[in-house]
Amino acid sequence: MFKVNENYLKLPGSYLFSTIGKKVAAYSAANPDKTIIRLGIGDVTQPLAPAIIQTLHEAVDEMACAETFRGYAPDLGYEFLRSAMAKNDYQARGCDISADEVFISDGAKCDSGNIQEIFSTDNKIAVCDPVYPVYVDTNVMAGRTGTYDPAKETWSDVIYMPCTEATNFAPELPKEIPDIIYLCFPNNPTGSTITKNRLQEWVDYANKVGAVIIYDAAYEAYISEKDVPHTIYECEGARSCAIELRSFSKNAGFTGVRLGATVIPKDVRCGDVTLHSLWARRHGTKYNGAPYIVQKAGEAVYGEAGRAQLKEQVAYYMRNAKVIYEGLKDAGYRVSGGVNAPYIWLKTPGDMTSWEFFDMLLTRANVVGTPGSGFGPSGEGYFRLTAFGSHENTVAAIERIKAM
Amino acid sequence: MFKVNENYLKLPGSYLFSTIGKKVAAYSAANPDKTIIRLGIGDVTQPLAPAIIQTLHEAVDEMACAETFRGYAPDLGYEFLRSAMAKNDYQARGCDISADEVFISDGAKCDSGNIQEIFSTDNKIAVCDPVYPVYVDTNVMAGRTGTYDPAKETWSDVIYMPCTEATNFAPELPKEIPDIIYLCFPNNPTGSTITKNRLQEWVDYANKVGAVIIYDAAYEAYISEKDVPHTIYECEGARSCAIELRSFSKNAGFTGVRLGATVIPKDVRCGDVTLHSLWARRHGTKYNGAPYIVQKAGEAVYGEAGRAQLKEQVAYYMRNAKVIYEGLKDAGYRVSGGVNAPYIWLKTPGDMTSWEFFDMLLTRANVVGTPGSGFGPSGEGYFRLTAFGSHENTVAAIERIKAM
Repeated sequence: MFKVNENYLKLPGSYLFSTIGKKVAAYSAANPDKTIIRLGIGDVTQPLAPAIIQTLHEAVDEMACAETFRGYAPDLGYEFLRSAMAKNDYQARGCDISADEVFISDGAKCDSGNIQEIFSTDNKIAVCDPVYPVYVDTNVMAGRTGTYDPAKETWSDVIYMPCTEATNFAPELPKEIPDIIYLCFPNNPTGSTITKNRLQEWVDYANKVGAVIIYDAAYEAYISEKDVPHTIYECEGARSCAIELRSFSKNAGFTGVRLGATVIPKDVRCGDVTLHSLWARRHGTKYNGAPYIVQKAGEAVYGEAGRAQLKEQVAYYMRNAKVIYEGLKDAGYRVSGGVNAPYIWLKTPGDMTSWEFFDMLLTRANVVGTPGSGFGPSGEGYFRLTAFGSHENTVAAIERIKAM
Repeated sequence: MFKVNENYLKLPGSYLFSTIGKKVAAYSAANPDKTIIRLGIGDVTQPLAPAIIQTLHEAVDEMACAETFRGYAPDLGYEFLRSAMAKNDYQARGCDISADEVFISDGAKCDSGNIQEIFSTDNKIAVCDPVYPVYVDTNVMAGRTGTYDPAKETWSDVIYMPCTEATNFAPELPKEIPDIIYLCFPNNPTGSTITKNRLQEWVDYANKVGAVIIYDAAYEAYISEKDVPHTIYECEGARSCAIELRSFSKNAGFTGVRLGATVIPKDVRCGDVTLHSLWARRHGTKYNGAPYIVQKAGEAVYGEAGRAQLKEQVAYYMRNAKVIYEGLKDAGYRVSGGVNAPYIWLKTPGDMTSWEFFDMLLTRANVVGTPGSGFGPSGEGYFRLTAFGSHENTVAAIERIKAM
């Protein structure tokens, strides 16, 4: 008789955003006259930039002729896109990353979920608290996290690194030595960042203890301050300890187009084995490449027109971030994030829990956000709003919150 | 110090098609004057049908306007595509499958590689021999296959079901009871099929012993004979023991577009746990949906124009299959497949090994095929040719082989 992967059964409840979806649907059904503004899930709202649209049309036309039709893509991605990323995201910043160290995928969520698979199930992970749930949940599914404590909402074999007001929402080096360290800067959910000097400390630490850093750089395009690193490879020694995840979802609005990449320098190794070779083997065996038309669209992100148009798109969202940040501050909230990231992190008023604030915001302002506690125990008492709505909706939402 | 997933290190050599690629590249470099015809990898060559192209353009235009832009897709797929599949692939054939039992993905290779993840690592798999390498390799990576015997080219904990001329290239019920049974009909690589009555025996067997059948129906569109089932759900009782994998690669030429689906009826369960709920959790946690424009293209496959155009496309390839089958038979080869499948399986002449025949075909006819031994030990002495080339190339290749 077949048996199931019992690790799946350890996962508590449902995914955060499913719960939010159900609550919002129930409220909507009971109050059909109310217009709800969603600043919860980090999904973009602006249409694809004209340069992307043009490239997509051209690529579709290539698929219509036998001479230019493309079948299976190279497992690891088309050379044109790998080169564009190596050149623009890395070499242009003085980072030593080559095209064959870039693996193209259908998105950073898949990569951040699948990357743990190339590590031993004995390895111990360290995560920020609060944290993007996918890092932990995929390690639970692999049996790497021990037992769950429902009271504390923590796993026995996970090292949590609290990111609170006291630490300025940055993690401190853990007391217990981890094997795999997940870092995300600019951070989801707190919108906080890290300076290059502070990130260098993490790289030095990882090299010293023999840990791998999985560095999620999905929000890199939103960095506005000078001393914030755009990639972990700006730090010395990162080539031997860091994997970087890149996304096209937030810098180019590809949440529904699906494109991402993982960078694994050939210097990250365990004995004779490079992680690069393992990830290549995984890609070759379990993946069949991102669609040609989507990879062409990715290339257009780096073209002259694409770059100019996307800079404007990012600026549009960051204008929203400013509206949220300043509006909430005016209204007396304690707020952080929103300067180098499209996320605003606010302290709930008084002793309100994150879910109590969620309910109040939904029912009294008809605004949807994300309860901080959904990202981990240290997120309790906090709340995330995203800058990805339309400008009109964002302004309206803040007016409603102010009037609440 | 981090450690790697040691199961990856057990995988022997490189993926079959990488080895072929290297051999062909070396021959080409040494013989730049020779024109090589590739009937090896199962990649299609005909451009996308006009109805698909038109839909792709329309969907791209939707992504250009804020009003019609689509961000994150539903994790499990858009309702319009899930419904089209449930209706056309199942309900129209009298099979009881509902839209919410269809999970949309970026292709059957990913699904066939990932599906093992929801099962216990203790479970024992049974595979046909020869077999599509992904089924076995992904179980190796998960640690489910024991130790490798390089002499026999087999794994200690895998149940092999030989498919040879003696069994008419169909598997027989295994003596040892498996937990998970991989079946693929029409078959890759042999091009063989199974009657509905024979498949019913497998369903009855699986229900009796408590096994799950993972049924790969990627080549369903090539079925031409009447008593060959188009889906395993034509068999009574399949709802409680079978998962079906569907692909858009071969019926619609989507190898470079990337779309597939997995069907898990809610009746497949282990105690109280449905496999449907586990796969939904996996999709929700590790996947972010297939691109909107690609799912729209998938819907067009079921439209009136799409259906008519794709029927012609399949007929085009099956005309190639006939050319290969009859040409080789005329030339004195022992040939099978090619009637309900785009693959032709031939016995190598005399005592030649599969790779010896590969080399002879490459150097003397400049034709590339796939050595049967690459699919498993019972494939030794066999060779696979595919019907996915252009008609002109296919005719030329067969002329060359005849003249060899």
